[in-house]
Amino acid sequence: MPHEYRTKRRIEFSDTDMAGIVHFARFFVFMESAEHEFLRSLGTSVDTEWDGNKIGWPRLSASCEYLKPVKFEDELEIRLTIARKGTKSLTYQFIFTKDDVEIAHGQLTAACCICNPGEKLSAIPIPDFIADQIEAANCET
Amino acid sequence: MPHEYRTKRRIEFSDTDMAGIVHFARFFVFMESAEHEFLRSLGTSVDTEWDGNKIGWPRLSASCEYLKPVKFEDELEIRLTIARKGTKSLTYQFIFTKDDVEIAHGQLTAACCICNPGEKLSAIPIPDFIADQIEAANCET
Amino acid sequence: MPHEYRTKRRIEFSDTDMAGIVHFARFFVFMESAEHEFLRSLGTSVDTEWDGNKIGWPRLSASCEYLKPVKFEDELEIRLTIARKGTKSLTYQFIFTKDDVEIAHGQLTAACCICNPGEKLSAIPIPDFIADQIEAANCET
Amino acid sequence: MPHEYRTKRRIEFSDTDMAGIVHFARFFVFMESAEHEFLRSLGTSVDTEWDGNKIGWPRLSASCEYLKPVKFEDELEIRLTIARKGTKSLTYQFIFTKDDVEIAHGQLTAACCICNPGEKLSAIPIPDFIADQIEAANCET
Repeated sequence: MPHEYRTKRRIEFSDTDMAGIVHFARFFVFMESAEHEFLRSLGTSVDTEWDGNKIGWPRLSASCEYLKPVKFEDELEIRLTIARKGTKSLTYQFIFTKDDVEIAHGQLTAACCICNPGEKLSAIPIPDFIADQIEAANCET
Repeated sequence: MPHEYRTKRRIEFSDTDMAGIVHFARFFVFMESAEHEFLRSLGTSVDTEWDGNKIGWPRLSASCEYLKPVKFEDELEIRLTIARKGTKSLTYQFIFTKDDVEIAHGQLTAACCICNPGEKLSAIPIPDFIADQIEAANCET
Repeated sequence: MPHEYRTKRRIEFSDTDMAGIVHFARFFVFMESAEHEFLRSLGTSVDTEWDGNKIGWPRLSASCEYLKPVKFEDELEIRLTIARKGTKSLTYQFIFTKDDVEIAHGQLTAACCICNPGEKLSAIPIPDFIADQIEAANCET
Repeated sequence: MPHEYRTKRRIEFSDTDMAGIVHFARFFVFMESAEHEFLRSLGTSVDTEWDGNKIGWPRLSASCEYLKPVKFEDELEIRLTIARKGTKSLTYQFIFTKDDVEIAHGQLTAACCICNPGEKLSAIPIPDFIADQIEAANCET
């Protein structure tokens, strides 16, 4: 059974909209921040250098399904697993719960790229120092 | 052939992130604003009243695929069609282009609900005054 | 000497812009979230009920001075004091530091109002159950 | 009498918060976008190159006073003037109105800087090709 990376997030006032609930687009920011926290927990960063190149993770796709509304000051628990580890990309799966009730779930696929300023993005195989850490985290489903 | 509702949007500085391109979550805001502009073009609004009730459109799901990066001051063309008109929900399809090159495409599914303050949301069949306008707009694919 | 309410905040990717630093408007969100965390620490909330009325704190003014840029994954320390406690309003003062170096400082003035849905906002003297807690917190400068 | 640069902006759903009105921090984004539109109207951009250097305008300070709430789908008129043209900085003044009633006003001070990637920011006198355009725009109060 895969390990889940878990984090929490309290809803801020600026996360809400006039419907009185969290704006749907904010869930994508929540996913991204959980992803980055996960990478920090592995000792790396979404914004890192390797072999003289800047490594980044531009997004290929993102999706979310919304099951229940969430409100200001609610605390969400976020569980991250890796749904697919490709040679050059990662697909993260996120489950959002509040008091053990599922609120939403989503996916984010990002490509590992050289992102040097002024150059075109170019996808590369995930460098070993990252791939090995991800393997060790044992978060693949 | 369905009619496409078309609008434009110029990228703002606050849409960008440190990667120098539009932050991926912003595309969901762009979709929503195009949706609301479409509803206004039909003479209605995403936030309206009907029969003494407040009608709203909470989101069921949202997704986006990213093909090319976009930058500050770029002007995006956004084309909206209706991929599915259910009894109680609408699925919008969005295609983003810049200079006729596809940048991204996405979907948004929203449920027609009574959203009276202090009450639970309850899904309802799309009222005729909206459903008829959507039919007349001929945007279904 | 007044007590300072202290909190921390790590910069997220979506806080940054194409200049590679935190977008200046985000500091106002950081101030607001510190304000709300402070109110929670007093056992109340920016969104509360009192005597059958909804109490809220619409903003009268906000300002920020920027001394140094901040970057992704930096951790800011935020110190809140109350620069002025009026009968119907509060002025918060915020100092942002990183590694003990001042990054920015700002102010936020909010009016205590009855904010019942569908009614006009009306400013009221800060209710005792809040005013007493603020007094006890001893954060006035 | 100075010329005012005028633009309009319709409030989007994601500009609002659970209080049912525009979130106060959004006004700073509105100011910035008006500033950038003004610079485009002069034939330049907030993100430009000059003499082999990248020129940018980091913010020194920002402030806003809020007079009346604004709601979803309201259309704001924004009037920009230049309150102070320093050697190395510009202070913009913004007045927000709806149906000729003042909603808010604010200021933004930005420093003209060389912002080459990987280098420290350094403030410079506003280059003539920008300073002359600003003079010609006759927006100084």
